[in-house]
Amino acid sequence: MSQKLKKVCIVGSGNWGSAIAKIVGSNAKKLPHFDDKVTMYVYEEMINGKKLTEIINETHENVKYLPGHKLPPNVVAVPDVVEAAKEADILIFVVPHQFIRTLCSTLLGKIKPTAIALSLIKGFDRAEGGGIDLISHIITRHLRIPCSVLMGANLAGEVADENFCETTIGCRDTKQGPLLRDIIQTDYFRVVVVDDEDTVEICGALKNIVACGAGFVDGLGLGDNTKAAVIRLGLMEMIKFVDVFYPGGKLSTFFESCGVADLITTCYGGRNRKVSEAFVKTGKSIKVLEDEMLNGQKLQGPFTAEEVNYMLKNKGMEEKFPLFTAIHKICTGQKPVAEFIDCIRHHPEHMVKQ
Amino acid sequence: MSQKLKKVCIVGSGNWGSAIAKIVGSNAKKLPHFDDKVTMYVYEEMINGKKLTEIINETHENVKYLPGHKLPPNVVAVPDVVEAAKEADILIFVVPHQFIRTLCSTLLGKIKPTAIALSLIKGFDRAEGGGIDLISHIITRHLRIPCSVLMGANLAGEVADENFCETTIGCRDTKQGPLLRDIIQTDYFRVVVVDDEDTVEICGALKNIVACGAGFVDGLGLGDNTKAAVIRLGLMEMIKFVDVFYPGGKLSTFFESCGVADLITTCYGGRNRKVSEAFVKTGKSIKVLEDEMLNGQKLQGPFTAEEVNYMLKNKGMEEKFPLFTAIHKICTGQKPVAEFIDCIRHHPEHMVKQ
Repeated sequence: MSQKLKKVCIVGSGNWGSAIAKIVGSNAKKLPHFDDKVTMYVYEEMINGKKLTEIINETHENVKYLPGHKLPPNVVAVPDVVEAAKEADILIFVVPHQFIRTLCSTLLGKIKPTAIALSLIKGFDRAEGGGIDLISHIITRHLRIPCSVLMGANLAGEVADENFCETTIGCRDTKQGPLLRDIIQTDYFRVVVVDDEDTVEICGALKNIVACGAGFVDGLGLGDNTKAAVIRLGLMEMIKFVDVFYPGGKLSTFFESCGVADLITTCYGGRNRKVSEAFVKTGKSIKVLEDEMLNGQKLQGPFTAEEVNYMLKNKGMEEKFPLFTAIHKICTGQKPVAEFIDCIRHHPEHMVKQ
Repeated sequence: MSQKLKKVCIVGSGNWGSAIAKIVGSNAKKLPHFDDKVTMYVYEEMINGKKLTEIINETHENVKYLPGHKLPPNVVAVPDVVEAAKEADILIFVVPHQFIRTLCSTLLGKIKPTAIALSLIKGFDRAEGGGIDLISHIITRHLRIPCSVLMGANLAGEVADENFCETTIGCRDTKQGPLLRDIIQTDYFRVVVVDDEDTVEICGALKNIVACGAGFVDGLGLGDNTKAAVIRLGLMEMIKFVDVFYPGGKLSTFFESCGVADLITTCYGGRNRKVSEAFVKTGKSIKVLEDEMLNGQKLQGPFTAEEVNYMLKNKGMEEKFPLFTAIHKICTGQKPVAEFIDCIRHHPEHMVKQ
């Protein structure tokens, strides 16, 4: 029987990867249809002269990325991604999105052909020539396995603290859906599975554009009504974007945690909001603020806005997405932020519907 | 031609009534199909020995309820509601909901039989015997005229400041809708008209229940993920409530300003959230907090939760609305707030959909 137990590998061990490892390890141990041992691919680094994988395997704590939380001892850190992944039936990808292509080429041909993937990676990649490429599509294309997605209002630290929250799994396959739910769901981390994979993933990326708009409103000191309007118009453009570029999505998906809940959290907390507020208040460029506030890391919102704008321009649809378009132009210095609200005053959403 | 010009009366002159009078007065003056003169019913009070109506008509400022903002001079304060309303083609109701029945009986038979109403009144009234009665239904029943509604993320002070925001008009009649939009919409106050009247109004009341839940989360210090989950589950219960008790509503209405936008603003700002947070932190009863924090005014959320609970109980549906039910029980001391999250851990929304 033992060979029929599902083996799980977590590819990634940052803040979010470690928080999810805590859940997955505990569920794998508890549930009879999963192999107890969960491998976690850890990019090796030296911490005070000691290997991070060794520290994790001895102390069961990711001291660098999730200090203060114990991982279940059945989660085993492995520094070689092929070693970690080769026997897995379920591969949970949770690495920064810029590493996914390299990881996939390393793994190609080395994993079980029957394996399935679950991507927790937020943000788009840039498609060749421009526009966006969904991470789950990259994984499926490069590894030739199906890839579901998990997105939601899930700040890693709060999940690790076991505070109650919800998440959304987008999975088209009716057999894989319940399996993925089993390994992810706990009493405090509640899962809703929907079949609308692409919409779930796209929400996780587009929300960052909207959060820039929310940050501009905060920076401009415009108040709660305006912020609510910007968030709502952003949501409407998210819905329209899916409708135009990924037709077949369901309106109900936007009511899931990946939609409205994640959007709210991102527009009230979150780095995109924060940096965008500073953008207004300091007058510095996004690039300078990335260096100053994010240690040079790229902010997702402006990057996504740029790729989305490429797609909109190609279709001659910039005017139908005035919020996304204005945010892109403001972030790239093509338009002063003072004109932000003027760009959305006569939004297509305000046109007569009756 | 002049008798064909539409006359508008604003019934009410509080904070929100005065902010809307500013808009309506300016639009009536500007638009050719409206009579310039807009009457505003003002409940007479003495301010430093002078009548409030006289102050408003001389200084064009409602010094008591919207100080610091000038009303257009064509808005005329009238202390007698029949006098103010008798010639009006459009009656805009914006008084505290507890006054509406008395006002209607005063106006019955004294207004134009062809007049139409627009209610800006938030909250339910209690139906005879229990349960909720929509304010617009009361107006229609008592005055025998059609009544549309206007709801949205519209804090009065920010509207008066002319900060950009959106609002939703629920109006079933395709001729009246554009007329109401004309008199309400400005460059900064953007209107979307939908035909789903009841849903628009119900959103404006149910959101206050959800805001109590958001306040509990804040009081319990549970963080952003949990708050987003509570807001989302609240939204799902709002949708389900309309589905059960006012069938025929549209999912898309919840994406309008009256839905998700107003819900967000209320759950992040707003008195229901604030008092509910204090409820957790101080351990005092809602009644005591109403006295201390609201000068004895009743908080809408707990009141609405009680009437909604009456309806749910009657249908044997308390368990299908665990969030609304828990909030009611907590507000009335039937359940400790520490059990709030446990009540929604296994929410029907988390049941398998696939």
